Amino acid sequence: MTAAAEPLPSPDSALLAGYLDAPYADVATKIRAELAARAEILDQQIEQPQDQFRETVLAALLDLAAAGQTGIGFPTKYGGGGDIGASITAIQALAYSDLSLMVKAGVQFGLFGGAIWHLGTERHHERYLADMISGRLLGCFAMTETGHGSNVAACETLATYDHASRAFVVDTPTDSGRKDYIGNAAAHATMAVVFAQLVVGNESHGVHAFMVPIRDDQHRPMPGVNIEDCGPKLGLKGVDNGRLRFDHVTIERTALLDRYADIDDDGRYVSSIDDDTRRFFTTLGTLVQGRVSVGGSALSASKVALTIATRYANTRRQFGAPGSGEEVTLMTYRTHQRRLLPLIARAYALSASQQELILLLHESFPGERGEPQDRRVLESRAAGQKALATWHTTDAIQVCREACGGAGYLAENRLAALKADTEVFTTFEGDNTVLLQLVAKGLLTQFKQNFNELDPIGMVRLVASTAVDTVVEKTALRQLIERLRDAVPSKDDDAGLLDRRYQAGMLRWREEHMRAGLARRLKRGMSEGGDAFTVFAGVQDHVVAMARAHVERLVFEAFVASLARADESVRPVLERLVDLHALATIEADRGWFLEHGRLSTARSKGITAMVGRLCEELAPVAEALTDGFAVPEELIRAPIAVRS
Amino acid sequence: MTAAAEPLPSPDSALLAGYLDAPYADVATKIRAELAARAEILDQQIEQPQDQFRETVLAALLDLAAAGQTGIGFPTKYGGGGDIGASITAIQALAYSDLSLMVKAGVQFGLFGGAIWHLGTERHHERYLADMISGRLLGCFAMTETGHGSNVAACETLATYDHASRAFVVDTPTDSGRKDYIGNAAAHATMAVVFAQLVVGNESHGVHAFMVPIRDDQHRPMPGVNIEDCGPKLGLKGVDNGRLRFDHVTIERTALLDRYADIDDDGRYVSSIDDDTRRFFTTLGTLVQGRVSVGGSALSASKVALTIATRYANTRRQFGAPGSGEEVTLMTYRTHQRRLLPLIARAYALSASQQELILLLHESFPGERGEPQDRRVLESRAAGQKALATWHTTDAIQVCREACGGAGYLAENRLAALKADTEVFTTFEGDNTVLLQLVAKGLLTQFKQNFNELDPIGMVRLVASTAVDTVVEKTALRQLIERLRDAVPSKDDDAGLLDRRYQAGMLRWREEHMRAGLARRLKRGMSEGGDAFTVFAGVQDHVVAMARAHVERLVFEAFVASLARADESVRPVLERLVDLHALATIEADRGWFLEHGRLSTARSKGITAMVGRLCEELAPVAEALTDGFAVPEELIRAPIAVRS
Repeated sequence: MTAAAEPLPSPDSALLAGYLDAPYADVATKIRAELAARAEILDQQIEQPQDQFRETVLAALLDLAAAGQTGIGFPTKYGGGGDIGASITAIQALAYSDLSLMVKAGVQFGLFGGAIWHLGTERHHERYLADMISGRLLGCFAMTETGHGSNVAACETLATYDHASRAFVVDTPTDSGRKDYIGNAAAHATMAVVFAQLVVGNESHGVHAFMVPIRDDQHRPMPGVNIEDCGPKLGLKGVDNGRLRFDHVTIERTALLDRYADIDDDGRYVSSIDDDTRRFFTTLGTLVQGRVSVGGSALSASKVALTIATRYANTRRQFGAPGSGEEVTLMTYRTHQRRLLPLIARAYALSASQQELILLLHESFPGERGEPQDRRVLESRAAGQKALATWHTTDAIQVCREACGGAGYLAENRLAALKADTEVFTTFEGDNTVLLQLVAKGLLTQFKQNFNELDPIGMVRLVASTAVDTVVEKTALRQLIERLRDAVPSKDDDAGLLDRRYQAGMLRWREEHMRAGLARRLKRGMSEGGDAFTVFAGVQDHVVAMARAHVERLVFEAFVASLARADESVRPVLERLVDLHALATIEADRGWFLEHGRLSTARSKGITAMVGRLCEELAPVAEALTDGFAVPEELIRAPIAVRS
Repeated sequence: MTAAAEPLPSPDSALLAGYLDAPYADVATKIRAELAARAEILDQQIEQPQDQFRETVLAALLDLAAAGQTGIGFPTKYGGGGDIGASITAIQALAYSDLSLMVKAGVQFGLFGGAIWHLGTERHHERYLADMISGRLLGCFAMTETGHGSNVAACETLATYDHASRAFVVDTPTDSGRKDYIGNAAAHATMAVVFAQLVVGNESHGVHAFMVPIRDDQHRPMPGVNIEDCGPKLGLKGVDNGRLRFDHVTIERTALLDRYADIDDDGRYVSSIDDDTRRFFTTLGTLVQGRVSVGGSALSASKVALTIATRYANTRRQFGAPGSGEEVTLMTYRTHQRRLLPLIARAYALSASQQELILLLHESFPGERGEPQDRRVLESRAAGQKALATWHTTDAIQVCREACGGAGYLAENRLAALKADTEVFTTFEGDNTVLLQLVAKGLLTQFKQNFNELDPIGMVRLVASTAVDTVVEKTALRQLIERLRDAVPSKDDDAGLLDRRYQAGMLRWREEHMRAGLARRLKRGMSEGGDAFTVFAGVQDHVVAMARAHVERLVFEAFVASLARADESVRPVLERLVDLHALATIEADRGWFLEHGRLSTARSKGITAMVGRLCEELAPVAEALTDGFAVPEELIRAPIAVRS
């Protein structure tokens, strides 16, 4: 059977939307309706200067709070909805509208509110949560420092405990220790969750989080708190990013978010987690939710862009057969199909994986249930999904902008703001390259240790001593089997390419081969007497490639698994989309597969040809597929894409 | 000999700059100094709202004109400098400063002024050129229509000659025939060069250019001229893009730019070029200069970004060997080297190719000297260089932004504007994908016909009938020889990888193989009875890949050839840079080389390893290399990159 046997039936977009949003279709639909009714924010983003638009975004945020949309993930006791999965769905749905609003909401309710909830105890919950949910208390999340982005453990801000006054003194000792890029800090927050090195009696206990008032009831900076505006940015005009410096600011003892550590009545440091490093990474675990939100929101932004570019490709005509007197649509062109269709397939694949991740996160709440190892798998999955989803988004919006030509450059057609606003998503909540290294460390140690905890030396030693042989043997066996299967690829063997087991086998084989190879390289490096940091640094690109291969495999498997919940009538199209996604993924790395004897040259060319055919076959239903993203007409708004 | 034998000597940046700018180092240096003295425009770009910044950019443009920098390419007779090569150098140097200024200058002096000069005759030169150069006459270039971007031949604006009144009536018959995205139109231009279908006595003669006054001496729109503002865009805030509609606007007979066609005293159409299509493409030839400028300016923008990201990578520290107490610079990391160094090498390679192109253009002036075939080669070269240079720039600035993390997102660090402003360069002066198809058509017909003139049917027929066999035979022979040479790649055969003949052979082989394969596919398609448009459309991605391979080869050869003019002391570093560029280019397409039996798997892996080693070796001199771009400190301006 070849791909283009008969035209694909056009799928029902509502059924596609239901499939994509499951099991949170109701929440998603409701939020989208709320946003559609407030779509004028998209015009305001274009028209208003920065200061005014910041206020517009704040007003929109408070409006959402008033509509009861901001507490979904918090305990009902404090006015929340108690549903963490639904809360992520809500925030990623926000990204169909203005992205400053989504980011500001993410800061307020995800990071600031999340820190109070996860790192604080009842006294903080009682005191802050209800006001935080309603927006009466606006806060920021002061983790990043100018000189210390991804390396939070190296942060310089100090919180020194003074037992005489039963208080902490928060201080910024150097310029590089200044808190930087802090969303909500430049204009609106009255309180900050500040991450600082806790010092008790000359002993440092590592990074802890503190509730620090930064503005008084007149909205003036508190004494000793210096606030600067980071000023204009490429995008996210409505988010007030700022810089915070503390000059010996005194805060009460209960300001410590004390879920994992506290100061007792005798002024001694006490903690339920003995190991400083482990405590630190448990604290950082609060970032998981933020990463899941950022990945999901990025994905939403890519869907808006793909919807616009697909509609434009179906209406805009350019050139045509001479003498026919008619120009043909852009979507008719092979290069155009090749640009858009694999990205649509990828958006579907990443959505399936995102929904799986949301459920994983949801199940671990409340109280971070489950084994530490499960928790590590969740953290790894969140890190990997965030990296791939945000890179996909950067790529997709770029392609969509180019595919819409000059029209794509005009603010009115939305791609400009989508591009500018999402650009930093690859960086915030963790730089993608750094995140993929976390994923790799987890895989190398098979999640037996908290991958965050291991420094390179410990990690390399662990791998060098134990993990290698097991992985290698298993892989060698699989390799043999797969090679036998692939030994007779004939030119017409297209059915093989569309075989799920073949696609899955390729992606799994790549991951395992990379993992085994990496283990071998680490082992060899150590056995040759290298120091662990240098050995690990020497294979950094291999590490990142391996992690990416791992996440690609998970995404593919999630996509396949998700089809079970799709209505039967849309499944044929989704099956084709899985094919396209799998083969385009393999094609993108065909150099590697060829190098490792996993693809014959004939089959490699066959994959490229098949990707082209699948694009051609799917092109007529491309618009139905992007309609499945269910971006409301009011939010599409681009004159080149709205339906009259 | 292996790559990392001994550390590379740090090259003298002034010598590198001299090499890059040759033979126009004086002009480049002078313009950079002018810009450095006016660097506050970079702050104004951030601080000023759109309307104000448009005036700032206009003032800067007039200031440049007053300083005598805007007429370099025009005849001395009209106050110009008579040096076309120097004029391109000047405009691409402008791109070190604010890009709105560069684009606005490109519109006024390149497109508007260029059209008057190249399409007009003495009466237009006498009347307009001096005022255009001084900025007393501001104009725009009204070619693109809402419904017709790349397909200019399909434009709908009409210019109907009325012999009774000895006048043309310019009219916009439909919405899709509206002139769109026209730079300088929304606010400042008083005159437009309008491209319109010329109709004389019910007969259409195709697209011609007309001088149309669009604003009166009170700066109000002329009667019948409707001007709209395209509004905010992703970037280029200082460029006033507008939309023009004409409602039966009457212009005098001499308004026709009549170098190639005119209306005689009896009201008859006369032209020195009989064929309508050929005349049309001769007219479009005026775009060459604009394309050369856009490619060069894009390249300049990438250099600013690479300078900033490289300096940041050398100062910013993150993580480090545990226990060492010190974090290491970002540049120490393999993934970071891998991101930046190949882009630096590519910027050098594209610069060498750009300088070659400028000389080619320069030699064809004045009066478009030389054979039509040479002219076609120049047009092809300009189209290809523009596509590769602008895509490189989009990639490079993206990578630099990510490599600078959150700091890269702040406006003060310049990458934001660089990203937003250059985003549309891949689209304007010709969409890159369309341009590469022009390049391919020229190659397939060996420039024997004006590639623009051939419609797909003519082109495909020509190829199918003549060109194939010659190309195939030559390629087959070469293939055999190269395969023999590559038959014994040993693991340690690194010297071979650094052999210029090997590198050149690979790039040339790819191009010729793609060209022969394409000819075969076209021939087969036609012999199987397909219609030419469908046959051509079916191989569109192959066409684009082939054109890209061709331009890559030219860029490589230009880079190699350029080393002869470099000072001996900097040559060792440049040789390494050529190696890195060549191998990274091959690596990026190694899937293709493997598929076509041109790389063994061992050698393919060897190339990847060698690229890594070259990056490592060049990392210590990366900053000297970007200093060679000679971006003045005043224009670097980014707090993360300026030297104190």
